[in-house]
Parts: sequence; C-alpha cells; structure tokens
Amino acid sequence: MIEKLGNLRRTHMCGELTKDNINEQVVLMGWVQKRRNLGGLIFVDLRDITGISQIVFDNEISVESFEKADAIRSEYVIAIKGKVVERQSKNKELATGDIEVFVNELKILDKSETPPIYIKDNDEVSEKMRLQYRFLDLRKSYMQNNIKIRHKTAKIVRNFFDENNFLEIETPVLNKPTPEGARDYLVPSRVNPGKFYALPQSPQLMKQLLMVSGMDRYYQIVKCFRDEDLRANRQPEFTQIDAEMSFVDIDDVISINEKLIYKIFKEIKGIEIDLPIKRMKYDEAMESYGSDKPDLRFEFKIKNISNVVENSEFKVFSGAIASGGSVRAINIKGYENEFSRKKISKLEKYIKTYGAKGLAWIKMNEEGISSPILKFLSEEEIGEIKQELDIEKGDIVFIVADKDKIVFDSLGHLRIEVAKTLDIIDEDIFEMVWITDFPLFEYDEDEDRYVAKHHPFTHPVDEDIPLLETEPEKVKAKAYDIVINGDEIAGGSIRINNTELQQKMFRALGFTEEEAWKKFGFLLEAFKYGVPPHGGIAYGFDRLVMLLTGMKNIRDVIAFPKTQNATSLLTEAPTEITEEQLKELSIQVNMSELK
Amino acid sequence: MIEKLGNLRRTHMCGELTKDNINEQVVLMGWVQKRRNLGGLIFVDLRDITGISQIVFDNEISVESFEKADAIRSEYVIAIKGKVVERQSKNKELATGDIEVFVNELKILDKSETPPIYIKDNDEVSEKMRLQYRFLDLRKSYMQNNIKIRHKTAKIVRNFFDENNFLEIETPVLNKPTPEGARDYLVPSRVNPGKFYALPQSPQLMKQLLMVSGMDRYYQIVKCFRDEDLRANRQPEFTQIDAEMSFVDIDDVISINEKLIYKIFKEIKGIEIDLPIKRMKYDEAMESYGSDKPDLRFEFKIKNISNVVENSEFKVFSGAIASGGSVRAINIKGYENEFSRKKISKLEKYIKTYGAKGLAWIKMNEEGISSPILKFLSEEEIGEIKQELDIEKGDIVFIVADKDKIVFDSLGHLRIEVAKTLDIIDEDIFEMVWITDFPLFEYDEDEDRYVAKHHPFTHPVDEDIPLLETEPEKVKAKAYDIVINGDEIAGGSIRINNTELQQKMFRALGFTEEEAWKKFGFLLEAFKYGVPPHGGIAYGFDRLVMLLTGMKNIRDVIAFPKTQNATSLLTEAPTEITEEQLKELSIQVNMSELK
Repeated sequence: MIEKLGNLRRTHMCGELTKDNINEQVVLMGWVQKRRNLGGLIFVDLRDITGISQIVFDNEISVESFEKADAIRSEYVIAIKGKVVERQSKNKELATGDIEVFVNELKILDKSETPPIYIKDNDEVSEKMRLQYRFLDLRKSYMQNNIKIRHKTAKIVRNFFDENNFLEIETPVLNKPTPEGARDYLVPSRVNPGKFYALPQSPQLMKQLLMVSGMDRYYQIVKCFRDEDLRANRQPEFTQIDAEMSFVDIDDVISINEKLIYKIFKEIKGIEIDLPIKRMKYDEAMESYGSDKPDLRFEFKIKNISNVVENSEFKVFSGAIASGGSVRAINIKGYENEFSRKKISKLEKYIKTYGAKGLAWIKMNEEGISSPILKFLSEEEIGEIKQELDIEKGDIVFIVADKDKIVFDSLGHLRIEVAKTLDIIDEDIFEMVWITDFPLFEYDEDEDRYVAKHHPFTHPVDEDIPLLETEPEKVKAKAYDIVINGDEIAGGSIRINNTELQQKMFRALGFTEEEAWKKFGFLLEAFKYGVPPHGGIAYGFDRLVMLLTGMKNIRDVIAFPKTQNATSLLTEAPTEITEEQLKELSIQVNMSELK
Repeated sequence: MIEKLGNLRRTHMCGELTKDNINEQVVLMGWVQKRRNLGGLIFVDLRDITGISQIVFDNEISVESFEKADAIRSEYVIAIKGKVVERQSKNKELATGDIEVFVNELKILDKSETPPIYIKDNDEVSEKMRLQYRFLDLRKSYMQNNIKIRHKTAKIVRNFFDENNFLEIETPVLNKPTPEGARDYLVPSRVNPGKFYALPQSPQLMKQLLMVSGMDRYYQIVKCFRDEDLRANRQPEFTQIDAEMSFVDIDDVISINEKLIYKIFKEIKGIEIDLPIKRMKYDEAMESYGSDKPDLRFEFKIKNISNVVENSEFKVFSGAIASGGSVRAINIKGYENEFSRKKISKLEKYIKTYGAKGLAWIKMNEEGISSPILKFLSEEEIGEIKQELDIEKGDIVFIVADKDKIVFDSLGHLRIEVAKTLDIIDEDIFEMVWITDFPLFEYDEDEDRYVAKHHPFTHPVDEDIPLLETEPEKVKAKAYDIVINGDEIAGGSIRINNTELQQKMFRALGFTEEEAWKKFGFLLEAFKYGVPPHGGIAYGFDRLVMLLTGMKNIRDVIAFPKTQNATSLLTEAPTEITEEQLKELSIQVNMSELK
C-alpha cells in the first residue's frame, strides 16, 4: 500500500497557494491533518511546514484516488497531484482559504499509527509526553515557528557580524578543565589514561587568545555547557552568541551591539528601538529596582527610608539600620484595593524565600491610613514616610528592613511579583537597559576571599585601578549587561591587556603567582607577546529567542532539550555503558559515595 | 610606559591605505612587524589582519614620538596618528607600497618579549612550537588567510541553505551512546550516577527525526567527535556541514548540492565548474582507479588482464585468478625512462603496505620490451598483454596479481604515488565526481556478518530491495559521495522511510527485533507516525577548507587543533582532575588495565 515517490515532485508548498494559482496543476506533499468523508467527497487538510491546503477527493474525478483516500488517516504522509479551484465557502482563518485542490492522483508515502499527542497548538498534553514524542511535538505550528525564528535570528546575527568584519572562528569543544566558576562536564581521554577534557562553559580564554593572535574581530554561535543543578529555565547545554573585538573600549562594544539588537528587533518583531539604549549603573539598578536585571516595563521603584526611621522606637526598623542594613519601600500607586490581607500574607511568604523576616505595609484609602505597624511609629515618622514615599489615597506601600542584600532581593522580586499579580505588564513592549559599572569583585563567604564577579580577566574602570590593592570592594569593572524586560540577554566586558595589571588582579583574588600560572598559564604566556586592548560580549541565544518568540519555557525554543534532570526523554540519554567501554577509558563507576 | 587607548580610535586598517589617502590624517593600530632606525628616521612596518603599512617616525616632526619609537620592538602593540604621504621608493610587493605614514602621535598599548617563533609565513619552525605558541602562529598572514577562507566558506554555505529554505537547527551535543560505528567520546553524568552521554559522531539520527518532525529541510555546521586512533589528517573533533531534505530522491539531493559546490568554488576560487558534475558507479571507480575516491586529475587507469593470463604457466598470475583474484595493470604512458630499478623497488615496497606480494613491471624502449617476468610468459601472452595494455615505446606498466581487494588497494595507491613522483598533478584544477551505487553492505570478517557500509538507515536501490533477504551482497545503496581530487568531501544517502523496509534491513544486518529496538528504539518509535521520503548529505568542512586553501595539513585550517595524540600543546588538555571531581561524577580512574 505504501508507494514510492517515483518521478512525482512537489510544485508548491501547502501554505502558499492563493487565488493566483487557480486552474494550475499542482503537486503537494505533506501530512494529513484531518480527513472528512462527506459521501462522494473526501476533504483532507494537508499540512507541511508552511501551512495547510484543503484537498478534495471526488469520486467522479478519480475513483482510484477516492478509494485510496478512504484509507488514509491522520499523520499519513501523502503526495497529491491536482487542480487548484476557487473555494465555495472561503476559510478566512487559513492563508490558503480561498482555494482548494481537486485531486487526480494520490500516493500514500507512509502510514501512521494514531499519534499519542495531537498535532495542534493547544493540546494540553503533559510536557513529559511532549518531550518523549518530540518528533510529533515539533510538528505543531507554534513549535515550527519557534524554530524558524531561531533560524532567522541566527542568520541576522551572522550577517551582521560578517558585514562588520567579524570572523566566525570555531573554538575547541574538548578543552582543559577550568579552575574557576561553575562545574565542568568532563570527558575521559582514552589515549591519555587518567586525564580528562572539559566541555567549554564559554570560549572566554580562547577568544582572548584570538585577539592576541591579531584576529581583530571574532564571533561564533556556539554550544556551551554547565554541569549545574538545573533551575527552571536552564539547560546543561546552551547556545551562546559570542563575540570579541580588538582596539576598543566600552562604548565601542556597546555601540556595535546596539546596532545588532536594533536589527534583530526590526527584522524579527518589526519594532524600531530607540538608540542609544539607555544605561544605568549597577548601584542605581540595585537601589531603585533591587536587581541588576531590572524590568523597566513598570515603575514601582524602591525608595530608601532609612534616614526617616533610623532613630525610630520601632526596633525592626532602627535595629536593621543599626546593624548596617536599611529600610526600603515600594509604593504600589493606586492599587491599594487589590491587596487583601490574604494576598499580602502570600506576598510576605514569597519574599521570605529571599531571606526577608517580614513584610510591612501601609495602605491609604477613603478611611485614611491603615497598617499593622502604625502603632509602633510616631506621628512625625508616619508623616515623613508618607511624604518620602508620596503616599496618596489609593496607594499601598510595602516595606522591608534587613541587610541590604536581603532588602534588595526581597523588594526586587516583590515588585515583579506584584506587577504580575496586577497583570499590568505589557508583553508587547521591550524595555532595554545597559547595566554598567558593576563591582569588579564580590566577597565569597565560603572561600573567605574576593572572587571575580564576572571573571578574572575583566578590566577595572581606569580610575579605580589604584584601589585594587587597597579597597578592592570599591573597584568597578568595565563590564556591561544588556537587560531586556528584566532578563539578562547578554553581558561582557573590556579585558585586561597587560601582564602587570593581570598580576595585580590575581593578587587581589588571593592567587599566588604560582597558582595563577597553574590555573591560567597559557593565557599568561600569551600575554607576554603583545596584547591589544580588547573586549567582547556573549548573548544567551536561547534566552534571546525566548524573548523574540514570547515563550516562557526555554525548552520550547530548543529542538531537542533536556529535562531539569539533564536527561533526554526522547533518546533516554544518558545511559549505562559496557564494562569494555569503561576499561578502554581507564575508569570505573564508583557508586559508593551514594550509599 | 604602557598607555591606554583613551579617545584614540582607528580610522583605517593597516592594509587598506592607498594613494587615495594621501594627505589624510589617519589612526592605525597593530603589531610591530619590524623596526629600522636610520639616524633621524625610524621606519616601522605596522601589521594588522588586513596587511602592513610603513610608518615613519621623524625626529623633526615629533621628538616625543621619535624617542618613544626608539624603544619599541617586534610585536609591540602600538597606536599611531599621522599623515599619509606618497612614498619616495615605492614597494610593489605591498598593497600599501605607494604610501607611508609620518607619525605625530604614538601610543604603546602593550610590550612584547622576543617571540619564540617568527611571525612570517616560511619560518621553518617545528609544528610542535607552532602549536604550543598557536597565538603567535595565528599571526602569520597565511594562517589568517586560512581562517578568513574558512569564515567565508561557512558564510556562503549558510546563505545558500537559507536561500533554499533549509532551517539551521541545533542538535544536542550530549547524546545517547551509539551502538554502531566508531568509538564515542563519553561524558559521565553527575546527576545520573553511573550513566554516560556520548558526544555525537554525526547528527544522523537527530536530523532524521527532524524530517519526521516535518521540518522539511535542515542544515547545520556542527562539531562532531570520534575517539579513534588518529591518522595524519584526522582530528578528534571535526566540523561537518550537515543537511537533510524531505520528499526527495537521489537526483534532488545531488542537484542542490552541485549548486552549492558551484557557488563555493566560484566565490572562493573564482572557478566556474561545469554542471552537472560527472557521476561514476562504485564498481567502475574500483575497476578503473582501485578506489571509491578516484583522483581524476590524471589518467593511469587500471586494466584487467586476467582473461589474458588466466591459463598462463606463470603461477603468480594464473594462481591468483584461480583462487578468485585477478591480475590488473596500469600503463604509465611515456614515462618509462623515469623508473630506475631503485625507484621500482621503492614502489614495490610501498604497495606491499597494502598487502601486495610483489610488483611486476614491463618496460618498452628503444631496445624493445624488458621485464623480469618475460621469461615466465609465452610469446602469445606477451603479445596479448602488449595489446591489451596498449604498450608502446616509452611506456612502463605495473602489474599486480592477488585478491581483488588487494589488487585495487595496491594499484589505486600506486597510481597516485606514481603521479606524485612524476610531479604531474596540476594543483590548480579541481576534478569532481559523484560516486554512486555503493554496495549497501560490507562483510565484517571480525563479526562474521554483514554490516552497513554507510549506516543502517541507508535506502537500498529500489530494484534491489527483493535481494535484501536473498543476496544482500548484491544490493546497491542510494548513497553518493562527492570526490574532489581524490578526497571524499561529502557523502550522503536517501534514507529508509518506512518501518517494514527498516526491519528487513535490520534482519539483513543480523539484528533481532529486540536488538534493533534496544539500539535504535526512539527512531523506530518515530517511524510509526508518518515519515516522509528523505535524504541528505554531510561535508567534511575541515577537508573542504583544506582543498580551498591548498593546505596539506588539517591543522592549518583549524584555529586550535589537537595533535595526533589528541592533546592540545597550547592548553595542555586533557589534564588530571581532582579526587573530588571524580567523586562527584561517581567514577574513579583505573589504570590497572595498562599495567
């Protein structure tokens, strides 16, 4: 019953037939979306990646085709030859809704069992099923659209970099294990027993070497790997748009990347963004939004009211300040009536996951000001808080008192949670901001030393270089992130380009000369021989495509993603291997640690 | 002494200044190629990725710059501002040889120690040094040119596929270990203890799934991995141009790929190749050239003279035929006088590495025919050989008698070796041929069963399908390789697209139903739900770039290659890892197998 393609060749795609094709003989091929037998006529929706055409089998045109058509079922693969005619009852929902194709030849190219998931966008099947039957899930039009947008975005990026004299250069996948940062995926070497490669977390060192090599401008769209415990929108392997340029400073990198971002949004979304994209210093982002990834689609800025309450009798406030923390608040202007006690207590529970001990609030409505903490505050303090936070009728403010880190984290998440709850986020706009002037270091409590906030090759802001040896915590970095709608889409920095400064940096990180050489020897060796000023950027490509497609789930923009357990439900990778394979690699499995 | 870039920005690249720029103020940045101090003038060749400009420091223009310039050495990174003037003594070897730049401002951006290898194309340093100091080796102009051609080729490929509606789709790097074929690189899973991923040898199964998903046309330029003992031009990680299309047969895949190949050669080499590219069946390639990768830049065809000598008294010939082998020969027309006894005995030694027991030869010159085997042959046989091989004055023929495999292998390599020795291969021409009608199976002596010559999903030639169960050795495959100048540049096939045929194939390979499911379960599952006819191709991208750049060493077209021992002399990967890392992965190193 299954037939060969033979000499039959497709003349059109299913989604492209219009009135212009009327009376043409066409050959279409694709999958049967649905089939209806109405007496002497069988109607089939035929689907390919471009869309659907209605095709009609008429007993009076071809008995043979009609009879064969009676046997076809959903997801059969067929080829048809037929004549395009104008449709009696047009279907405005369909691009090809003006026409239908009357078939005079049918070939059944492959059969199908009843598929375990429906091929329609809102099938409401579990994600487990979708991942297990990914080859069916990818037949859905929205999934195919995601893949198309991913393709198109990659193409725009590649053309842009090419036009700007960036060379696409491939860096190795089998690398040296990295001494700092996240956990590597490791690959035992068979020919070098007992030794391991690491899959790259990023091509950072290699792209710096390319600048040392005089390649001038480099880019790559490249898979990177992190063996970390996976959070919701993380994948063990992810894709980076990676770029680096020589003889530049911050503004050069930012400026060229703005042009790229402009181009992507214009070509994919039809939106012309304003250039230059606004910039915000790290400190301001933290102060106003409690995050270095502020979502600027809505206000709800954080305000510091520490000066108002530092001497308050209310020890929750004044105590937090006395022990080096602060009291900060957000005025949710005009939404007082949206927050029942129940809702507030839910919010409080939410921010406790970020370390807050509690959530204070003050409402103002027809009946005046109300709040559980009023009784602890003086009239004067209440008045000043009211003024400082501009509390008017209809407002509700939320206040957190704690160490700065906790206050920022709690209120930063609170403002987003509130905006989501109120459903005031416009999903059609894209608010972009460059965050700059990051701290160069952050203190690692576990290791009891400063660690690089980005990586140990980030260039300090020029005027802060003298502070490296005295007050490293005050040194800002020549680093920049582009944040869109609260997501970090790309980040980069200017790199250190001379040995003396690099050594100062290592000293500030607490590395001895010997340790530094052990960890980064080949880069330090390269640094002896003339390094141009250089800097670059890396985009999270999966995240960028999520933003462009409006997907909330990273797995919806990756053809074959893994679960949060880093497994493939489709192929069942990873799997056990044979004793012989282990022997060849000079390793053995040792589960004793797990017992 | 080292200065910051400050506000200075490059106005031109070093390689692009011409007479048109005379009198312009320009800013150039780059590396010092060489410096000559001629009294009051210092001449510097300044180099970037585009080329070299001569810059001049004149004591009378800027004393400060002149004095700083006196300190600069080879490979220092500098920025200069100056005026373009016409050169007194033009340098025709240099693109910018008409001009020089008189400097009024100099910044030294980084110093350099004396580099361990010279930055010039013919430095005659060992490859070990080149790989260890790759960041310097990549400063050489021919190496940068290789990287540029690689970039440009990738760009042509991507644009071509995009224009032809192929979607770039990324397939996973962390895969299920493959049951057939070469050895996988394996990656232990931390979160799934005792289980392993495999790095892909090719995205074969995933791209077939994409066709099942209705993606219609797919391509990817993608890293693949094989943990095999490395031969000269092999790398553990290599790059493939991978493509697959639906609703096609052989001619469709060949035709679109010919257009791509045409485009690549036109844009990179300026050569318009003739389309269609000629085709040759596998059997003919073996018979005439002793190889399925024939180099057609020269003749020296193999001829079968078995029928002439099958009854010969000379048992070396007749015996080989009697035991199922053959006697074949090549006439090296007109080069008789190039082959001394010493040279012939060298050739004999060479072909013995391919299993031949000896090399017979017959010469004809002024003095008539001569050969060590004449005495074993009858007059009549000699006459027939002469006629069959068209032996004329000035010719020499080489004859091998053995099993077919050995005869083909020996003479196939001999004809190439001879052509190389005679130096008659034109390196500027590209002789292309599609090899088709490969056998579907080959017999694996070790496993005592048929194995797939390409892979188990290759579609048999339609008319041979009935032979699958009776005479599998006779079944031809819908497979095709494109061979250029004796190198296999790409290969592919039409795939099986229905379950019944796939099962027949597995049976022919000796797999039980259960084994087949264990090995290829997810593909077989996918095959239940409507598979379009499909086929594709994969190019060895590194090899293609070797061909386009004329490089003989695969490492010269890869930025950061590995040695034949699969190590990086630059980064020293692979390396030992810590006990803690091993524990986390639930593995331990077991060197006992090596003792």
